[in-house]
Amino acid sequence: MLKLPAVARGDIPADLVIKNAKIANVFTGEYELSDVAVHQGKIAGIGHYNAKTSYDAQGRVLIPSLIDGHIHIEDTMLTPENFALESVKHGTGTVFADPHEIANALGMSGLQFMFRASQNLPIDIFYGAPSCVPASELEKPLDALDALSIHDMFTRRLTHHLGEMMNFPAVINGDPEVWSKILTASALNVPLTGHAPGVSGHALNAYLSSGISSDHECTDINEAREKLRRGMWLMLREGSTFRDLRKLLQLIKENPLNASRLMAVSDDITARYLVNTGHMDEKIRIMLSEKWLDPFTALRLVTLNPAEYFGLHDRGAIAPSRLADFALLDSDTLDEHFTISEVWKAGKLVARDGDAFSMYDTEHTAPVLAVRTTNIPEPEALAVHAGGEIMRVIGIQEGTAITKTLTLAPKLEGGCVVPDSERDIAKIVVLDRHHNSGKFSVGFVHGMGIRHGAIGSSIAHDAHNYVVIGMDDESIHTALCALAGMGGGVVAALGGDVRAEFGLPVGGLMSYLDAESVSAGLEAVENSASELGVKAGHPFMVMSFLCLSVIPALRITDICGYVDISSGGVQSLFVE
Amino acid sequence: MLKLPAVARGDIPADLVIKNAKIANVFTGEYELSDVAVHQGKIAGIGHYNAKTSYDAQGRVLIPSLIDGHIHIEDTMLTPENFALESVKHGTGTVFADPHEIANALGMSGLQFMFRASQNLPIDIFYGAPSCVPASELEKPLDALDALSIHDMFTRRLTHHLGEMMNFPAVINGDPEVWSKILTASALNVPLTGHAPGVSGHALNAYLSSGISSDHECTDINEAREKLRRGMWLMLREGSTFRDLRKLLQLIKENPLNASRLMAVSDDITARYLVNTGHMDEKIRIMLSEKWLDPFTALRLVTLNPAEYFGLHDRGAIAPSRLADFALLDSDTLDEHFTISEVWKAGKLVARDGDAFSMYDTEHTAPVLAVRTTNIPEPEALAVHAGGEIMRVIGIQEGTAITKTLTLAPKLEGGCVVPDSERDIAKIVVLDRHHNSGKFSVGFVHGMGIRHGAIGSSIAHDAHNYVVIGMDDESIHTALCALAGMGGGVVAALGGDVRAEFGLPVGGLMSYLDAESVSAGLEAVENSASELGVKAGHPFMVMSFLCLSVIPALRITDICGYVDISSGGVQSLFVE
Repeated sequence: MLKLPAVARGDIPADLVIKNAKIANVFTGEYELSDVAVHQGKIAGIGHYNAKTSYDAQGRVLIPSLIDGHIHIEDTMLTPENFALESVKHGTGTVFADPHEIANALGMSGLQFMFRASQNLPIDIFYGAPSCVPASELEKPLDALDALSIHDMFTRRLTHHLGEMMNFPAVINGDPEVWSKILTASALNVPLTGHAPGVSGHALNAYLSSGISSDHECTDINEAREKLRRGMWLMLREGSTFRDLRKLLQLIKENPLNASRLMAVSDDITARYLVNTGHMDEKIRIMLSEKWLDPFTALRLVTLNPAEYFGLHDRGAIAPSRLADFALLDSDTLDEHFTISEVWKAGKLVARDGDAFSMYDTEHTAPVLAVRTTNIPEPEALAVHAGGEIMRVIGIQEGTAITKTLTLAPKLEGGCVVPDSERDIAKIVVLDRHHNSGKFSVGFVHGMGIRHGAIGSSIAHDAHNYVVIGMDDESIHTALCALAGMGGGVVAALGGDVRAEFGLPVGGLMSYLDAESVSAGLEAVENSASELGVKAGHPFMVMSFLCLSVIPALRITDICGYVDISSGGVQSLFVE
Repeated sequence: MLKLPAVARGDIPADLVIKNAKIANVFTGEYELSDVAVHQGKIAGIGHYNAKTSYDAQGRVLIPSLIDGHIHIEDTMLTPENFALESVKHGTGTVFADPHEIANALGMSGLQFMFRASQNLPIDIFYGAPSCVPASELEKPLDALDALSIHDMFTRRLTHHLGEMMNFPAVINGDPEVWSKILTASALNVPLTGHAPGVSGHALNAYLSSGISSDHECTDINEAREKLRRGMWLMLREGSTFRDLRKLLQLIKENPLNASRLMAVSDDITARYLVNTGHMDEKIRIMLSEKWLDPFTALRLVTLNPAEYFGLHDRGAIAPSRLADFALLDSDTLDEHFTISEVWKAGKLVARDGDAFSMYDTEHTAPVLAVRTTNIPEPEALAVHAGGEIMRVIGIQEGTAITKTLTLAPKLEGGCVVPDSERDIAKIVVLDRHHNSGKFSVGFVHGMGIRHGAIGSSIAHDAHNYVVIGMDDESIHTALCALAGMGGGVVAALGGDVRAEFGLPVGGLMSYLDAESVSAGLEAVENSASELGVKAGHPFMVMSFLCLSVIPALRITDICGYVDISSGGVQSLFVE
């Protein structure tokens, strides 16, 4: 006779019973005042139960653990362990992570590192198979991962679904190489996740004809409505920089049933945001600050819905047979003050009142970077010779990853185009860090606010080369040397001096330190950047997107210089 | 370059474009006035398109083809081919069928027959692996199908999900044999469908601890609400006899989001119902006669929701990449007059104005019944000797499969208990037809209205032995002989004469004739039954449930006599 149903019947005691809980039922949108019985990590039943151990909820709200349907863990600069220990305090139980940053930086061995580092954690991490390494042919990562690589990731069980298919032009154009990756995953009947900013009409039909079923790039309600109409599940993004959740929630006002195909996701958040602001709990606070929204519907967007979309019927709700992944609030109401107190993972208490328990032995060994960049251009090599009346400049826009293509008159000095702090125009340099080719590109960028020196980073989506923005070539050179010396990280430099730096030894993307240390380390470099005049919030995150070729408009990569996916590819510095 | 996205982009012509359609969008609950482009059986896009062939919808409503989440095809007495040709006229595109009737009657070769007969039809049929053959240990089919048989069904790809797990007491009790069937399917990550009439509280928790995720047996709103709370998807049943849809729809009034986990299903319908009343279109008419219900929500219950529950993301909506399975209504509104005009399957016109096109070559060969029943009891052997003051009688209740256990004084003649037409008490006999053992049971039944003669059938859930209800032993004997002579069917007899009979050569369950002929053949026998006094509507369906041991209360099987699952099993004729 099996034990789980015996516990459910009440015939043998449960391992754990949460007593006097106000259970948030995400199926029917109701509270239930009841107990929850747990056996071997699973929920046996809701009702009155006895147990070996009981935990008195004292009438507080018990919610299913929260689920993030889309995040890049690398962008927190935390390893999976430290990410888990921080996010679990906020009630996170499961994340669906796209490890395409590490896949660009370290290839398949980067994926294996992430997978290994994700075992025995207080949250479950399911990885998507990075579908776009490189993000497009305009970028050059350590290794390109093709359809056979995708096949291998699934065969080795490293991955659970197809990671965001960002190369939407190739999908729309029916490119056989890109479609072969999609069809490889599709044949395995796994969810195919998408990324199609601004794609609509016939192009959207073409993108969706591939079977891709979700999107997290909507920034506009009309875009979102069209994608919903065409059958996409929508991931409403609310990260530390890009915040689309509140406005897109309006879809639920239009039709309550729309809520059944929506999720709230992070995409990109920083360690500091995790420590100071939160994770999925913050999304609930934002949603519930919209007073019109039913709180159970809000909860569903970060519990049941992502579980359903990803086909994991063992979580996302408090119900028999599901994992005993749940959390107690500090209060007896679901409202905008939403604060997590205790968190259980598979029936084990893993966090309480902001402390996460390291209940598991973990070890972590990242693969060594195959290539150390030694081929760094001298300051003179970074000079840009005058070549036209009008030049293109990358225009940073606050609050969105979408840039503008600005056309401005260059400032000239000694026959060269130079930065112009009057007009907030800085130089941007991208240097290959994977192949030690010495290949680099130079362009100009508006909107960073930098007045002196340079800031640099090894986080530069998606190929993650070294990117530096600066006001003079010596400072830029100093920053590049510092990045190469650390094997990756973030840096602020002035002239020949490194003003502050923080190393990211794991693939140039992540630190081994915990969330608070990472947050503090990054803050020190950001403070130095501020002293150099940098005004953009999260400047290293803003900078990291300027090399990403798959988002409109003007970008820069090491191999191509300026590129613009919305204008057909490579762009020259000077307008002809 | 792939062709489907090229069609979607509008760069090459579609195979077919439905022009000027008023598309019912089940995602957002809106009409869209647009065209639908089809390429190689799939939907390429919604928008303005050109095509090799176009079809003018003239502004009528285009819906996704309808999906039945739970039906037993055998109970229509039609083969899969003839079922498909009839149901497609009503807009059906896909059914999820549990072939446990034929599995009881013919074992694994019965399943193979069904699977083979389901290829190249104008509808898609996905079979559940029959989980309860026998339905319980109180019944004896041709062969018992155990966990290894379930495993084989999936390995051979005959089945798609686990068929309704009716043996809820064994699931609740943690019976290893029954759980091994569930876990075999669960390990394959297929949906596990349930059947748990009246199960609630701790017993429901125990049932659900197995991972079973749906139920179609709710007859009461409170029962339905509890099952929804515990995470079940609910299939609201609306068959030719059991009609629970209208009252259970109220769940949507309680919370519109509840609609996301509801379906409407048939379970059991007759050929006559199919011909005269309809299939899934009738469910929509019933739902839309509830004026408060949003028509798109109603549509979703028979399109997107069953597709989602069963994990088939290639259907259930009109959207890019999905199958071109859709139907035009005869009007430009979704309302209670809902009438299907044209139906397309994978882009092919398969029905129009009530005519289905046999576009496919089909052949059908049913396996020969291994055993011919020759061991039929003589009339004298059917006598029941007096043995107590009070006897149990099966009480038929109109409109539900649930019976009552009546306790009545027997009518005696010559030391034997005999039928009593004054009190509407008839004799019921169940005879083994699979093993030629000659084993039979005799009991009494109230509520059939029969006054003379006997009616008999080889449809007797779930073991499908011969069942006869009659007022005298000679008529009963005549009916049994007629059934054995036909190798299964339905019969009405009076004394030594067969008054009407209709053969069901395919496993004693199905005819090779089309829906209208089956309907007429059954009607002739029903008319004869009426002449014998039978008053129950659908008397052969009513009779067919009296041997089903897994529904409360009193039932009868060949091997056990009276049984009552709600009272612990075998029951004696006389109350002690």
